[in-house]
Amino acid sequence: MLMDAAAYRESLRAYSPRVFVNGRKVESVADEPLLAPGINGVGVTYDFAHHPEHQVLMTARQGTSGKTVNRMLHINETSADLLHKLEAVRLVCKVSGCAQRYLSHDALNGLFQATKRTDGEHGTDYHQRFLAYLHEVQNRDLTLGVAMTDAKGDRSLRPGQQANRDVYVHIKERRPDGIVIRGTKAIVTGAPYMHEFLVMPCRTHTREDADFAVCCAVPVDAPGVTIVARPAGRPGEAAAKFSAKYGQSTGVVIFDNVFVPHDKVFLAGETEEGGFLTTSYATHHRHSCIGARAGFGDLLIGAGALMIEANGLDPNRHGHIRDAMVDLITITESFYACGVASSVYCVKDPAGSVMPDAVFSNIGKLLLATKIYDMHKVAHYVSGGLIVALPGPDEDHNPDTQASLSEVLMGRQDIAVEQRLEVARLIEDLTVSHQGGWYSLISLHGGGSPEAMKREIWRNYPVMEKVELVETLLDRGVLDQGQRASKQPGRCCATGCDVPTPSKMS
Amino acid sequence: MLMDAAAYRESLRAYSPRVFVNGRKVESVADEPLLAPGINGVGVTYDFAHHPEHQVLMTARQGTSGKTVNRMLHINETSADLLHKLEAVRLVCKVSGCAQRYLSHDALNGLFQATKRTDGEHGTDYHQRFLAYLHEVQNRDLTLGVAMTDAKGDRSLRPGQQANRDVYVHIKERRPDGIVIRGTKAIVTGAPYMHEFLVMPCRTHTREDADFAVCCAVPVDAPGVTIVARPAGRPGEAAAKFSAKYGQSTGVVIFDNVFVPHDKVFLAGETEEGGFLTTSYATHHRHSCIGARAGFGDLLIGAGALMIEANGLDPNRHGHIRDAMVDLITITESFYACGVASSVYCVKDPAGSVMPDAVFSNIGKLLLATKIYDMHKVAHYVSGGLIVALPGPDEDHNPDTQASLSEVLMGRQDIAVEQRLEVARLIEDLTVSHQGGWYSLISLHGGGSPEAMKREIWRNYPVMEKVELVETLLDRGVLDQGQRASKQPGRCCATGCDVPTPSKMS
Amino acid sequence: MLMDAAAYRESLRAYSPRVFVNGRKVESVADEPLLAPGINGVGVTYDFAHHPEHQVLMTARQGTSGKTVNRMLHINETSADLLHKLEAVRLVCKVSGCAQRYLSHDALNGLFQATKRTDGEHGTDYHQRFLAYLHEVQNRDLTLGVAMTDAKGDRSLRPGQQANRDVYVHIKERRPDGIVIRGTKAIVTGAPYMHEFLVMPCRTHTREDADFAVCCAVPVDAPGVTIVARPAGRPGEAAAKFSAKYGQSTGVVIFDNVFVPHDKVFLAGETEEGGFLTTSYATHHRHSCIGARAGFGDLLIGAGALMIEANGLDPNRHGHIRDAMVDLITITESFYACGVASSVYCVKDPAGSVMPDAVFSNIGKLLLATKIYDMHKVAHYVSGGLIVALPGPDEDHNPDTQASLSEVLMGRQDIAVEQRLEVARLIEDLTVSHQGGWYSLISLHGGGSPEAMKREIWRNYPVMEKVELVETLLDRGVLDQGQRASKQPGRCCATGCDVPTPSKMS
Amino acid sequence: MLMDAAAYRESLRAYSPRVFVNGRKVESVADEPLLAPGINGVGVTYDFAHHPEHQVLMTARQGTSGKTVNRMLHINETSADLLHKLEAVRLVCKVSGCAQRYLSHDALNGLFQATKRTDGEHGTDYHQRFLAYLHEVQNRDLTLGVAMTDAKGDRSLRPGQQANRDVYVHIKERRPDGIVIRGTKAIVTGAPYMHEFLVMPCRTHTREDADFAVCCAVPVDAPGVTIVARPAGRPGEAAAKFSAKYGQSTGVVIFDNVFVPHDKVFLAGETEEGGFLTTSYATHHRHSCIGARAGFGDLLIGAGALMIEANGLDPNRHGHIRDAMVDLITITESFYACGVASSVYCVKDPAGSVMPDAVFSNIGKLLLATKIYDMHKVAHYVSGGLIVALPGPDEDHNPDTQASLSEVLMGRQDIAVEQRLEVARLIEDLTVSHQGGWYSLISLHGGGSPEAMKREIWRNYPVMEKVELVETLLDRGVLDQGQRASKQPGRCCATGCDVPTPSKMS
Repeated sequence: MLMDAAAYRESLRAYSPRVFVNGRKVESVADEPLLAPGINGVGVTYDFAHHPEHQVLMTARQGTSGKTVNRMLHINETSADLLHKLEAVRLVCKVSGCAQRYLSHDALNGLFQATKRTDGEHGTDYHQRFLAYLHEVQNRDLTLGVAMTDAKGDRSLRPGQQANRDVYVHIKERRPDGIVIRGTKAIVTGAPYMHEFLVMPCRTHTREDADFAVCCAVPVDAPGVTIVARPAGRPGEAAAKFSAKYGQSTGVVIFDNVFVPHDKVFLAGETEEGGFLTTSYATHHRHSCIGARAGFGDLLIGAGALMIEANGLDPNRHGHIRDAMVDLITITESFYACGVASSVYCVKDPAGSVMPDAVFSNIGKLLLATKIYDMHKVAHYVSGGLIVALPGPDEDHNPDTQASLSEVLMGRQDIAVEQRLEVARLIEDLTVSHQGGWYSLISLHGGGSPEAMKREIWRNYPVMEKVELVETLLDRGVLDQGQRASKQPGRCCATGCDVPTPSKMS
Repeated sequence: MLMDAAAYRESLRAYSPRVFVNGRKVESVADEPLLAPGINGVGVTYDFAHHPEHQVLMTARQGTSGKTVNRMLHINETSADLLHKLEAVRLVCKVSGCAQRYLSHDALNGLFQATKRTDGEHGTDYHQRFLAYLHEVQNRDLTLGVAMTDAKGDRSLRPGQQANRDVYVHIKERRPDGIVIRGTKAIVTGAPYMHEFLVMPCRTHTREDADFAVCCAVPVDAPGVTIVARPAGRPGEAAAKFSAKYGQSTGVVIFDNVFVPHDKVFLAGETEEGGFLTTSYATHHRHSCIGARAGFGDLLIGAGALMIEANGLDPNRHGHIRDAMVDLITITESFYACGVASSVYCVKDPAGSVMPDAVFSNIGKLLLATKIYDMHKVAHYVSGGLIVALPGPDEDHNPDTQASLSEVLMGRQDIAVEQRLEVARLIEDLTVSHQGGWYSLISLHGGGSPEAMKREIWRNYPVMEKVELVETLLDRGVLDQGQRASKQPGRCCATGCDVPTPSKMS
Repeated sequence: MLMDAAAYRESLRAYSPRVFVNGRKVESVADEPLLAPGINGVGVTYDFAHHPEHQVLMTARQGTSGKTVNRMLHINETSADLLHKLEAVRLVCKVSGCAQRYLSHDALNGLFQATKRTDGEHGTDYHQRFLAYLHEVQNRDLTLGVAMTDAKGDRSLRPGQQANRDVYVHIKERRPDGIVIRGTKAIVTGAPYMHEFLVMPCRTHTREDADFAVCCAVPVDAPGVTIVARPAGRPGEAAAKFSAKYGQSTGVVIFDNVFVPHDKVFLAGETEEGGFLTTSYATHHRHSCIGARAGFGDLLIGAGALMIEANGLDPNRHGHIRDAMVDLITITESFYACGVASSVYCVKDPAGSVMPDAVFSNIGKLLLATKIYDMHKVAHYVSGGLIVALPGPDEDHNPDTQASLSEVLMGRQDIAVEQRLEVARLIEDLTVSHQGGWYSLISLHGGGSPEAMKREIWRNYPVMEKVELVETLLDRGVLDQGQRASKQPGRCCATGCDVPTPSKMS
Repeated sequence: MLMDAAAYRESLRAYSPRVFVNGRKVESVADEPLLAPGINGVGVTYDFAHHPEHQVLMTARQGTSGKTVNRMLHINETSADLLHKLEAVRLVCKVSGCAQRYLSHDALNGLFQATKRTDGEHGTDYHQRFLAYLHEVQNRDLTLGVAMTDAKGDRSLRPGQQANRDVYVHIKERRPDGIVIRGTKAIVTGAPYMHEFLVMPCRTHTREDADFAVCCAVPVDAPGVTIVARPAGRPGEAAAKFSAKYGQSTGVVIFDNVFVPHDKVFLAGETEEGGFLTTSYATHHRHSCIGARAGFGDLLIGAGALMIEANGLDPNRHGHIRDAMVDLITITESFYACGVASSVYCVKDPAGSVMPDAVFSNIGKLLLATKIYDMHKVAHYVSGGLIVALPGPDEDHNPDTQASLSEVLMGRQDIAVEQRLEVARLIEDLTVSHQGGWYSLISLHGGGSPEAMKREIWRNYPVMEKVELVETLLDRGVLDQGQRASKQPGRCCATGCDVPTPSKMS
């Protein structure tokens, strides 16, 4: 029952969400040109599940049901699962730029852990509800939007202190058959062309703010839901070599007293576990982001090499060009390596699934977040200045200029000028257009800002082990733990995980 | 006879250049909306010359004529001139993003030196021709486009080896009354709305390529000139808070057998001096670029501070936000400091003018070229993720969404949501839109790529002095110079320049 | 037959090498105080093989003999072997700073591959000779010094062009029973307290220089061998909290017509395979270096945390201190992650062993080489300025000053001043003393300089795959390979390796 | 009455301070070999004042007395003074590594401003006392030690909260004829061979801690003063090519109830002005540090170039070597440029002197503090690995090894092996020995840690101007200042300073 891209697009017709793009109501999401690149991006995850070469990466067997599901909906049971997920995300993103659907995976895995933990603490039955929902999602091969980042209002105030409580989504009313939620999620990836939203809290809330600790599933067209979205990519722009085909919409999603029946509610006031869910989701998501941005790196490396060639340069003879390409490779593969290590040193969760190692996962995301700018720099560096004055595609068919431009904009004689212009426009599209700016920004802030990663790295790192090592070397008795309440005793790695057979690197 | 911005715009009507933008012929440059932001940018340099507060910076007395001229057309005679020019460029660029006209200054100063030197070597009369031209340009208060970067073709081949010689501009024919030039300049800043072009060589050519060592002035509408340009900024886009007002067009300029009379020819085959002109121009230009990008830094610093405020954060309480702002300040002011030092340690040219110190000038440009990406990163960092999903301006007037969006997108209660959105869109415009990408790319490659700066730094640095210092400390006899043919004996600074009274920093 | 540290030290008495340290002849290496810290460092690898907690990491079963051997002498057969070796190196180096003996491992693994390949190309019997030698080394549990880096002379000339051929080790004479070698290896780790040297070429030599392509095993006290070594660590210095115990000697080793019997000769003129040996060794060695320097990172992290505590600061309240520690962690774990990924994506060698992935291995080494300086910076940053004026240990027992110094140099009241001084001196020892300088330098140049890593990264990276990806996205036919002779078609990863169960991270 | 180096050394005999070095009491500072390199370093500032070539930089006319004084004791009256001081510091430090005496200058200039301000606020007569003292110091041509950094104890507590108040120097008793001070200053540069100490507070103290806001002058041998110092440089070490000649001692100075007569007291409880003094001193000092470390850069650049030459490499042919040298130059000259700009944009103080611009001064110091590590890296990079195994000088005269080592350690044939070894040892001395470590640490923490600089940059930067710029561009009314209490309205630059004629750059 795995859909392909065409079936996915058709499946969207079953929904009638209230969507606005550029101030205009969208009549049919499946047919809206401004959203097509985003739908195409998600579509890659569907098509590749049917591609014989990619099946081992793109599908997996769900342990709780025994069924084969799309990798983007699978609960990881081994470190091999994590490594394959990482590779799968890189695979679909190097084709689509950003295939978006890995967020469904990240949220499902976070919920699998969090519902189990909540039941243990509170005697609730969230995990069973969730398993039923998980299997339904897998069987229908859905794509879920993650509605996590609240609008937040004044960042120096707690949710309950805000002048307008709707800047955070919260439980407005508890009814016998379910809950009513209200508020705004500010950044929802792919919002218009999801099947359902997973509403999740974006931090540990205090006891007073218990109503903000809510997690539930809501169809995109549930009454009371409004989506205000941006176009996906650069649809319809002739110069958009890549992002006219593939892109990503992001949307603000307003929940105006939306009713959610109990079987779709997975958290409703348990603040501690809400925080755990946020963190657990974030760890899975940052691990996925590593794969996604490595795929973007693959695109830049390939485009850079083609541009160098078209300019008539050779990295083997021009050291500064080779060094720049090595920089780009080093950036990409060193954060990717953190994703690999995070898979290898995964942690078994009491729920039965595995979680990527938090330290490596956060370090990888921190590196990609801050180095995406250097990736753009290198792409510009190796491409030369041509892009600055590159005439647009309208000029290609201007009889007054086309002939002379073609002659003088040629680089190497054996590479047609069209090819040179095409790759120059690709690099422009990826790194100079607003699509390029978007890649930077989403890399920096997506999945949490660098500050959040630093907090997690510090919180999870086994500093205490290193302290004891040094005390032993100094022939000291080790200090009493009580004196070091502020340091975690922790470990960040596990012994005895099943460890992965990689499929291939890129 | 100093024009203001309105007069400048009107003056463009006297020209009828053959200009194409987006594949369409431009009927009237002065009225073309796609070029208006570029004309506005240049206009700032005209208007500010009349502004009492700015006159000391924006005007100067030309020594050779005794007349008061626009700073952007002045030949520097003292280090104070250089410092004031640097400050003037920062001033006009922090308002306009890039006021473009400083390129006129850079080229005129390079030519002042190069024509003198050429006459000395070859007994020509270029300097007199040039002085006459200079005074005319100053009297008419023109803006000159710098047509320097050739299309270059296969970068591994010399001009004369190219399959198509037209990838470099060259002398096609020498006539009794002048020369005929032909070829393509690939990146000409502000091409459509210049009064004239200064055609200049982009490197030292070999003897065989003497015809490529040509420098002359050509009106933008001289017969045979075609300009294929990109729109300036983001004209007409409602979300373009800044770049709908101010921008920059760049164009490819094709010279198809253009006749230039002798009195406008300033170099015609003198290859060595052509190289000197390239270097001299580059040194002046890199010095100006420092001021320009510092102005861009001012914009980012101001926008960042406003965004932080609108988000409800305070750098004095949030250390990571303050640190990020300090990074942005440190980047901006440390490359600006190189511009100041380059002014202070200027070098007297035999022609009677001064040249910025080449080492500091190149270091400043190298720093801004490679750190513009970090500037964008900091701007994104302090702004938070809002920009990713920020609804466009069309949404502002959508009755179905406007009210609820306004409520939930507010940050601090005492700052209207419109103000928050406005500054978020400004940052998006400056750093996420293609305008942002363009700032990066032009910073990296404009005025020569980083490789060119490194070469110049090495070539001009007084390494030999340091070597001698160390040899003295080691009580060694200093090695014979002959053994070190590959190292320059050079000095990079002068004693006894007149040194500047700064006006103010920013 | 695995020795422990005491047995290893005793075993050195069976050798009588000609060793000079500080201009003085060493009578007994085993008893020489100036070498003791180095012997202690190697000793850790022996002792830990007997430690129950460490045995799984520190020993392994050699496939060709079925015997249990020290991990530092084992030929890797699976990716798990590589991961365990990486972890083992980190383990012994975080205790000893640098345990040195992993070089034996790196050379043996390189030779295992290279002798097999040479036999295949030249019909020689090197692999059998080598296997016999390998088993003997394992049975006797020896430590081998790697004599690879030649003195090199004028770096702009090939070996055969040098005025003095002895700046490279080479075959002086070929005899019926063996060869005579001569020349100097400039940097041999732990030279005086090795059992034997493995002499290896340091690059691919040309055909004319075939005599320089020589590899053989030579006992440290073979006639004609002279070792001029530096003291190991800071023996006898009271302030040397760490490096009076553990250190590393490096030596120049002069081979003055040393005879080597055939059964200890593993390469004798096969220039291509000599280059392969160099590269293969380097890949293994760079992988090991990653583990070694991660262990150094562990020391710094622990020492930094103790110093912060003793100063009365808390990273959870002082953001800039926490950020600095996170930097240190990020540097350490991100290059370590490259070692993990290099293990996971290992490559099967035709000889039956596995080689770490070359791209990840080189990236990891490149990162540690260039970031060790930042590691020192962070350690200094979090420690504060105390170290600058810290009175030496002689002062601790000065009755005139000891009492008052103790009082005023105390930080937190609950931490004795001795403890604060001790950790301050440890940080001084690790990062300010010449031991600290040595760590930097050896990290930068050990195992090849950054330039060498960049070359290897570029040579091994599958750029062609990325180019094809982009061409497919551009709907282009993929260019003919012939046109891209300069790019490797390569892959850098393997499918289907057995992948490791990590033991634990640190 | 300007002394030369010999007279300075002799003048120390007039003092009999209680000094301990390495646990041993020093009988005669002037004759103590362990302190000689430090005395030599200071001596350079004396000798150069008599050197005709350097007199313009090394002397100046004191406005308040009309007398010619050593630049290191001069109160700056113009921006030219500041630039010349910067150049003078670079000059003496590139010869001596660190000439130390500029700290006298920095403290005198800070006190000139602070005493004037205190008198204005409190009606005291500190400024007159100070002027009398200043002229005496200048007339006697003294060198003053800056005793500012307190021992600090538990850094999370205020001085008055410390278990032991003596971790900060404070007024123990106020007597009719003077004050009695007590406590410990932890890091005093050159302590043993100063003439007097200027005791100064290291921060703004609270009202309760008014007794800690004390500033006064104390002869090094005042009763109750004990100095516990480290050796200066590496005295007596044969391998210490540089630091056996020139070095720096730092000392802990204990004030055990030291009486100070009123005419040497310049602050006694005025907490606000104590904070101003700290800041003012710090600004002058950071400006000086820029010159000092640029001089260190000169040494490294020269040594690097010599090493490259001796290795047989040529930066013009080996791009990666040239790039590394350009990095070193760029680092050095870009922080130096901040010193130049700080001079140019100096601020007139109400006391009549000038202060370097605080933003540029702090940025320059921040850059040098964090980039000194990269300077070491580059020095190692261009030198190659030889230093790791370089035999020590004892080996040079070992008849058993000397001949063969000389032959094989030669690089280029036309450069004697002694020369190669000498420069290798120089680089080792400067960057690998504990002297190198000391340079790093003192650069990072000397004059305040990076955190302090960031605070000052933020506090002094005219953020408000940039905010207003952006608000104007957005056509907004500018926000009321009241709403922005947390932001300074400030300016960081002045109009109309006299601006400097540089002498020469290096």
